[in-house]
Amino acid sequence: MKQLLKTGLMAAILSSTVASGAVLAQEAAMNEKHADAAVTYRQSIFQLIRSNMGPLGGMAKGAIPFDQAVLETNGMRLEQLANMMSDYLKVDTRKFDVDTAAKDEIWENWSEFEGKIDALKSASANLYQVAQAGDESQYRAAIGKVGAACKSCHDDFKAD
Amino acid sequence: MKQLLKTGLMAAILSSTVASGAVLAQEAAMNEKHADAAVTYRQSIFQLIRSNMGPLGGMAKGAIPFDQAVLETNGMRLEQLANMMSDYLKVDTRKFDVDTAAKDEIWENWSEFEGKIDALKSASANLYQVAQAGDESQYRAAIGKVGAACKSCHDDFKAD
Repeated sequence: MKQLLKTGLMAAILSSTVASGAVLAQEAAMNEKHADAAVTYRQSIFQLIRSNMGPLGGMAKGAIPFDQAVLETNGMRLEQLANMMSDYLKVDTRKFDVDTAAKDEIWENWSEFEGKIDALKSASANLYQVAQAGDESQYRAAIGKVGAACKSCHDDFKAD
Repeated sequence: MKQLLKTGLMAAILSSTVASGAVLAQEAAMNEKHADAAVTYRQSIFQLIRSNMGPLGGMAKGAIPFDQAVLETNGMRLEQLANMMSDYLKVDTRKFDVDTAAKDEIWENWSEFEGKIDALKSASANLYQVAQAGDESQYRAAIGKVGAACKSCHDDFKAD
């Protein structure tokens, strides 16, 4: 527990404003350690989104069979992860030499970027609703909307 | 969209059984690519748990001020992440040369490991309840229980 709290304390200092909820304005990374942690965390959330979206993309394309349970579970998780994104992405790492695919435009045009996150939140909430409703005729379109929200943001804010 | 679906398809093949919900038994990684993806995903979920636990550890220790909004938001997110863990950890990567701190004992003693995840789920669900109840006298103990669940599992299943 002592070690955990020590680690926790460092993380607290590094990310004290992550998940403050009410405040969603961007904030500058305080130092290189903070910037590195921010990069790790935001890449982690994108990886989890990718892992959930993968099977859904396969289903939408017909490459893997439709699976109601996966649709519901992954839809729920995509919504949960989309709701975490602003808190992780708001840490502005532009001043530090970090290894990142995040373009400077994220923090230069923060409100536009947040709009893209809002689009992902809406699309994933819709997907989860469609999944719960169990109407197979709608799931491809709902998955497509999530994919479109991903792509729209990557086009503008992710380096190739 | 085409590129996304292509990526999605690959991810689908790599992780088709992630988040299948009903089936929680362990499964062997199919190949090195699958094993590598599994490592990336499970490290990602641990990073997100760490980022949420950090500020709470600081609060419990008194190193940073109590913040009701952070307690609620991070409590909720810890519960959500804890509920995702089994699906990510069940991919058995023992047969592949992956860079991991996950001990073989995870898959050798899967039911014991799942018990540790269940303990984290209970502790984080309790934390979120305490956070929502807004009783400041209880939050330190509730955070401590989550920390204890983390440590108990790391002691047995995480390499130093």
